[in-house]
Amino acid sequence: MTMTRRTILAGTALAAAPIGGSAALAQTSSTPAPSADARQAPGFYRYKVGDIEVTVINDGFARRPVEGFIKNAELKDVQAALQDAFLPTDSLPLTFNTLVLNQGGKITLIDTGNGDSGAPTSGRWMANFRAAGFDPAQVHTVVISHFHGDHINGLRLKDGTAVFPNAEVMVPEAEWAFWMDDARMNQAPEGMKGAFQGARRVFSPIANNVKRYEMDKEVVPGLTSIAAPGHTPGHTAYMLSSGQAKLMIMSDVTNHPALFVRNPDWSAVFDMDADQARATRRKMLDMAASERAQVAFYHAPFPATGHIAKDGNGFRFVPVQWSAAV
Amino acid sequence: MTMTRRTILAGTALAAAPIGGSAALAQTSSTPAPSADARQAPGFYRYKVGDIEVTVINDGFARRPVEGFIKNAELKDVQAALQDAFLPTDSLPLTFNTLVLNQGGKITLIDTGNGDSGAPTSGRWMANFRAAGFDPAQVHTVVISHFHGDHINGLRLKDGTAVFPNAEVMVPEAEWAFWMDDARMNQAPEGMKGAFQGARRVFSPIANNVKRYEMDKEVVPGLTSIAAPGHTPGHTAYMLSSGQAKLMIMSDVTNHPALFVRNPDWSAVFDMDADQARATRRKMLDMAASERAQVAFYHAPFPATGHIAKDGNGFRFVPVQWSAAV
Repeated sequence: MTMTRRTILAGTALAAAPIGGSAALAQTSSTPAPSADARQAPGFYRYKVGDIEVTVINDGFARRPVEGFIKNAELKDVQAALQDAFLPTDSLPLTFNTLVLNQGGKITLIDTGNGDSGAPTSGRWMANFRAAGFDPAQVHTVVISHFHGDHINGLRLKDGTAVFPNAEVMVPEAEWAFWMDDARMNQAPEGMKGAFQGARRVFSPIANNVKRYEMDKEVVPGLTSIAAPGHTPGHTAYMLSSGQAKLMIMSDVTNHPALFVRNPDWSAVFDMDADQARATRRKMLDMAASERAQVAFYHAPFPATGHIAKDGNGFRFVPVQWSAAV
Repeated sequence: MTMTRRTILAGTALAAAPIGGSAALAQTSSTPAPSADARQAPGFYRYKVGDIEVTVINDGFARRPVEGFIKNAELKDVQAALQDAFLPTDSLPLTFNTLVLNQGGKITLIDTGNGDSGAPTSGRWMANFRAAGFDPAQVHTVVISHFHGDHINGLRLKDGTAVFPNAEVMVPEAEWAFWMDDARMNQAPEGMKGAFQGARRVFSPIANNVKRYEMDKEVVPGLTSIAAPGHTPGHTAYMLSSGQAKLMIMSDVTNHPALFVRNPDWSAVFDMDADQARATRRKMLDMAASERAQVAFYHAPFPATGHIAKDGNGFRFVPVQWSAAV
């Protein structure tokens, strides 16, 4: 082998002696102008959980400044974790990944993405949902995990249009009780009032029809709610079961796995009750690791499904191998 | 929190009390029949290396029995490595991922996939290539890394049709010298004759037009060949450079990263000179880790690009975070 680090990485010695520069190659064949565009592939991914077809629908991303993101860790430690994961250390792209369950043609959504209310780099949900062959009029049930805007805003456009006109909307009772309480909204600090108002924007027009669900219940066939409080008071995870197959749907039990699966005691600024969120996170990651259960995270990199392994005092997220076969 | 491992993972206690079983929900709304099909998203992924647009094109997969796959490791150790990666321990899906370089409309392929000569679970290349907006008639140059069938068979259909009629085909001189040598073919063991014949099937009709390239040369602008022998005598890796940006294209320096990045001294049965392949692998993985260079592997899980970190006596492959933005 004649390669050396210097010649390969510098590449300068080689630039002077190309085999067939662009001019030379242009004369050797007549090629039509390419029509390839620069779009990314559609952001959906299908997998099976027993008989249930699951489709992940990506809603793009939003960049989050790293400084100030974690309440109880030094910036240098957070940046070291990001560097270990080969991620940017200044501004982290946080992604949004909802789930579609197809059970013999009955379509259930779990969360809805940002709709037209998110960052300009989000709002990809509807195009990806349609690319996956779905139509919003077909949606039978929308199950909401908690009332943060990136999970509920896809239910209603800014102009008031209901996006899933035929869907029953199901929300955690504890989440409804907290966010729809006017007295609590009025007492909330200014910085939190927007979240209360956002929940009203989405849910008030359908308040009489929203179905509220309890924990440890089968919300739709095969999908059982799991209390996962801390991130918000009524934040909900799920166990999806079909035959022997299971999927633990983690919702926002962690934000980005490279930070919070690796370091489950770190607290993102989004966690309303940091101690409770930490206890929930440790408990559920422990369970996933012990059971070698497949998991799905809302904020893991697309396609946002994999497994959890114990690693030192924390855990590791191991993404599934992408498969051309569903 | 009321969840327990028993109630969550068993889920039996809950099945008796669904909120809204399918019959109940069917009465609450009238939904059209869903048209969603069960297809996977198209297997292409775009990213930039400086000014060069790179598109990974997946050609599906082939299942490889784990037993007998690695020449110098105990089956139980191989199965432990697969279990650590949450992969099947009996039969491993090996994937095929070619690269398309788009440089101002000039299209270069690096390897071509299986064409119609591979396992029934492969042969997805053309559909994915077209889904990415490309046309085979637009391909200006095809650069071949080595002469194994899963890299070259996409050049020519079984019926003899040339798939890229306007492309210049560029191959490693050392690879041509080895596989196109009739004396060597005649002396080869029976089990190897198919590979020699396969190279003739693809290349003989264009033998006078094939361009043979040397190592440490700029094969097309920005793409420099790197001698990476062992897997085959003329097996070639590449450095793709544009401005300060670089991508180390590893070809088959490793097969599946969960096995051979983690355990670089293991030898797959495909490596013709195991000792040389091991030396090449260690050298290139060391370089990638030291430089924190982005890498691409032909047989890594799609989209088959990421970074290399040292980990004990081996390395870890850290896939890139999928991005909706190119």
